[in-house]
Amino acid sequence: MKALIINEQGLHLAEVEKPVVASGNALVKISASALNRRDQWIREGLYPKIELPVLPGSDACGEVIQVGDPIDTSWIGKRVIINPNNNWGENPKIQNRDYHILGMPTKGTLAEYISVPVDRLVNAPLFLSDEEAAALPLGGLTAYNAIVNKGELAKDKKVLISGVGGGVAQFAFQFALAVDAQVWVTSGKENVIGQCVALGARGGVNYKEPQAIKSLSKSVGGFDIIIDSAGGDGINTLLEALAPGGKYVLYGATKGLPSTLNLRNIFWNQLSVLGSTMGSDQDFSDMVQFVKKYQIHPIIDSIFSLTDGVQAFDHMKSGNHFGKIVVKP
Amino acid sequence: MKALIINEQGLHLAEVEKPVVASGNALVKISASALNRRDQWIREGLYPKIELPVLPGSDACGEVIQVGDPIDTSWIGKRVIINPNNNWGENPKIQNRDYHILGMPTKGTLAEYISVPVDRLVNAPLFLSDEEAAALPLGGLTAYNAIVNKGELAKDKKVLISGVGGGVAQFAFQFALAVDAQVWVTSGKENVIGQCVALGARGGVNYKEPQAIKSLSKSVGGFDIIIDSAGGDGINTLLEALAPGGKYVLYGATKGLPSTLNLRNIFWNQLSVLGSTMGSDQDFSDMVQFVKKYQIHPIIDSIFSLTDGVQAFDHMKSGNHFGKIVVKP
Repeated sequence: MKALIINEQGLHLAEVEKPVVASGNALVKISASALNRRDQWIREGLYPKIELPVLPGSDACGEVIQVGDPIDTSWIGKRVIINPNNNWGENPKIQNRDYHILGMPTKGTLAEYISVPVDRLVNAPLFLSDEEAAALPLGGLTAYNAIVNKGELAKDKKVLISGVGGGVAQFAFQFALAVDAQVWVTSGKENVIGQCVALGARGGVNYKEPQAIKSLSKSVGGFDIIIDSAGGDGINTLLEALAPGGKYVLYGATKGLPSTLNLRNIFWNQLSVLGSTMGSDQDFSDMVQFVKKYQIHPIIDSIFSLTDGVQAFDHMKSGNHFGKIVVKP
Repeated sequence: MKALIINEQGLHLAEVEKPVVASGNALVKISASALNRRDQWIREGLYPKIELPVLPGSDACGEVIQVGDPIDTSWIGKRVIINPNNNWGENPKIQNRDYHILGMPTKGTLAEYISVPVDRLVNAPLFLSDEEAAALPLGGLTAYNAIVNKGELAKDKKVLISGVGGGVAQFAFQFALAVDAQVWVTSGKENVIGQCVALGARGGVNYKEPQAIKSLSKSVGGFDIIIDSAGGDGINTLLEALAPGGKYVLYGATKGLPSTLNLRNIFWNQLSVLGSTMGSDQDFSDMVQFVKKYQIHPIIDSIFSLTDGVQAFDHMKSGNHFGKIVVKP
């Protein structure tokens, strides 16, 4: 079968063996996959514990065409998405030490077929296209844990989505709109802010302008929830943009570590800094229910064919996208 | 009446006018007061918005001897402690902008008498001596909000109390022991660690030795809750000492701000950094109930007479105490 492979020669399309379906597994014929930043980071060698070669990809929608021992034919023919968690473990709040995400070290979704344990299969929501369903799993799960669980998202809460162009941020943005929170965004791109306003955001500012974030915070009376994956020195600006008692939820640190932290602001204003990453299997199930309840359609930026997979990765690297980048066999 | 006063000439014993009881207030004849670090900071000019002269003191036990209009004699003769909150406001999670603590700008407890609103009075727990009851209010309230509310203290949780010699830390320590948490401590003083072990701590290390904190964390499998008021660069050591999903609760920053913050540790291990300060009126009431339920006797370091009040402050400044410093008229 065709698959995207990252090895010493870099990312390229390759002909690899079609998976053999092991006991307890199902073979899924993939109709659409989607990229996450994680895939590009693995390509760049910037992810922990990379084991080459990698068949990347954590997101997919497809049809179950075969199941292994013990034969349970009930999944055959079903249109499914795949829970990208492996070995989350017993504790709903924190992943096991041997937790990993689909798509490294195990073979991922950027291929024509994938074999996954049957318990990773979830029916794809009927109202979503294959492309939309493929866009959902990892970004939706991470956003759900960050903004719903940690941020305690609710109607009327004042929410700021930092760096809204990111895949997770986009879902957090949509989830916040869905529950009728008051939503603002930051982005480095004017057109992305404009798109978000068209979708329901009350406004947005450029994250490169701390003064603009301050002014926005002042005008809205401080945010109850801020979702961020940039970190860096911007964290203090964002913490100052919180209302007293507010929550800053961090699920990444693409801008690195800050050179200080205003602790007095944190304790005096009773702020919370909440780390978040992925989510449990229960969170995955809850997230899919949430998406169904609010009929949320993931935002699709572009669709590439699997044979143009390298271009899809390059497009993600460029950052010139808003919404998920989908790849189709 | 005699009172301790801080003015341009510093801290000294003075003869001041006995309070006149305003409408809605009660006059309390103080039997014992207690010091908090806040008092010494005000003396040193290190507290925000100091308005001289100050009659300091946030903690007291005493007897109600007079009430103002409308006359409600039910409080007369009662042995009370005083809720040190003024204007907490409607939101249980966060204080109002005009919130302040008894003892600056309003006249505090380091005097023979105090007039306070009747709604600040709470019956002193019967099983506590006047000195113990006087030690309870501000430290107990702050510790309760930090470790019970924010830390979600519970039986068997692994708890580290950083800088256990402090007034709030001492209460957090006692509260954790009371619910049968597993409790460890840090202190700069060997003898304080020894005292804590005698009281029920499972062990302790010197907070000046990050490697000792690391080893301790490793041996206990990481802490679920860490309570700290030092901040500074120690915050990263303490965050690394948390178990995945653990909570670091900060209620002060005596060591200043850190020079970085390990954000990757925070998001990957789903840690919480929770700012905390004082607590609501409901928290005060809950704290007193908690102390009664578990029959907790505050640890008293020493008792000074009001006329030796300057020495009491000097003793607090020295840091050579473990437990509350009580001052008696």
